[in-house]
Amino acid sequence: MTQGLFITFEGADGCGKTTQLKLLAEYLQKNGVDVLVTREPGAKGLGEKLRDILLNYDGVVSDRCEAFLFLADRAQHIDTIVAPAVDAGKVVLCDRHIDSTAAYQGYGRGQDIVQINNLNMIATGGRKPDLTIVFDIDAETSLARVGSAKDRMESSGIEFFNRVRDGYLKIAALEPNRIKVLDATKSIDEVQQDVIELINTKLCALKS
Amino acid sequence: MTQGLFITFEGADGCGKTTQLKLLAEYLQKNGVDVLVTREPGAKGLGEKLRDILLNYDGVVSDRCEAFLFLADRAQHIDTIVAPAVDAGKVVLCDRHIDSTAAYQGYGRGQDIVQINNLNMIATGGRKPDLTIVFDIDAETSLARVGSAKDRMESSGIEFFNRVRDGYLKIAALEPNRIKVLDATKSIDEVQQDVIELINTKLCALKS
Repeated sequence: MTQGLFITFEGADGCGKTTQLKLLAEYLQKNGVDVLVTREPGAKGLGEKLRDILLNYDGVVSDRCEAFLFLADRAQHIDTIVAPAVDAGKVVLCDRHIDSTAAYQGYGRGQDIVQINNLNMIATGGRKPDLTIVFDIDAETSLARVGSAKDRMESSGIEFFNRVRDGYLKIAALEPNRIKVLDATKSIDEVQQDVIELINTKLCALKS
Repeated sequence: MTQGLFITFEGADGCGKTTQLKLLAEYLQKNGVDVLVTREPGAKGLGEKLRDILLNYDGVVSDRCEAFLFLADRAQHIDTIVAPAVDAGKVVLCDRHIDSTAAYQGYGRGQDIVQINNLNMIATGGRKPDLTIVFDIDAETSLARVGSAKDRMESSGIEFFNRVRDGYLKIAALEPNRIKVLDATKSIDEVQQDVIELINTKLCALKS
C-alpha cells in the first residue's frame, strides 16, 4: 500500500497550481499511485450544497456567515473526504486549503491572522497537510497568463495580489518543513519537474 | 420610538420558554410595542436553507461541520435579522441563542466551554442580548409536561437534562446583569407575570 499523503496546492491567482495539480495526478497515477483530486471550497457532497448557497443565495450573506460556511465546508471536507482517503493510503491532492484563508482573508483583506489560524485548527481538528506547495509568481507574469480572466484580477487590484503573494511567503517562512515555495514563473514542464522532485523527496523521507 | 431590545429565551427542554415567548409577544403588541419573534437555529431566509441541510442532508455531516453551520446560521441571523430590527427600535424576542450552545454542547455534551464562548463571540461580533431569561425547571416537572415528546427527552437521559440545567444556572451566575433565572415550575400565568415584571424593570432601567 502507498503511504497516505495529504498535499495542498497554494498560490495567488494565475500561479498555475491547478494545472500542476492535474499534471502531478496523471504522473502519480501512471506510476500506480492511488490518487484523490479534490478542492476547497466545494468538494463533492455537502460541499457542493454549501458552494451553491455561497454562489447562488439571492439574499445578503453576511461576512461572518460566509466565513463560517467556508469553515463548515472545510471541516466536512477533512472529516468525510480527506482524512478517510489519507488513512486508506491514498495520496490526496487538494486545490487550496487552510493557507488560502490565511493568505487571502488574512494578509490580503487584513483580517485577524491569529483568529484565522485558530478557526482553521478547529475546522481541521489540527490535521495539517503533509506537504504544501506554494506556486510563487509575480503580478506581471500572472496578469500576462490569466488572459480572459484578467478583469477579475485587475478588479481586485495589483496591490491585493501582492499582499496575497507576500502573505504566502510569510506563511511558508513560518513552516519551512511543511511548506515549499516553487518559482512558478518557469515553464510548465520545468515547474512540473520541481513538483515531482518535491514529492519524491517527501516520499523518500517518509520511507526512511 | 420604542427602545430597541434583544431578548433571548433559554432553558432546558420542556421549560415552557416558547409558550412564554408567544405570550410576551402578544402582551407587548397589545401595548403598542413593535415586536419581532425569531429563533435559532433556522430563522427566515438563509437560516431555513441551513436548517434544511442540517435536517435533510442524506449523507454524513461531521460534528465540526455541524458546529460551524450553526455558527454560520447565528452570524447570519444576528447580522441580517436581529441587529437591523433592534437598531430600528424593535423588541426582538429570540427562542434560543448563544447560551443554548454553551448549555447543551458545552455543559451537556462536555465540549470546550472557552472555545464555544470564543466562537459565539466571533459569530455575533460580540453583540450580546440585552436580557436573557432562563426558564428553570427540574427534570421531573419537565417530563410530566412534555407528554408525547417524552421519548426524545428520555432518550437523551435525565443526567443530560440535569447537566444542561446546571449549565444554565452556572452561565446565569457568571452574568447576573444580563441573565435572569425564573422558576418555570409555576403556572403559565404566574411565570408570565414574572416575565412581564422583568421586561418592565429592564425598560425602566433603560429609560432612567
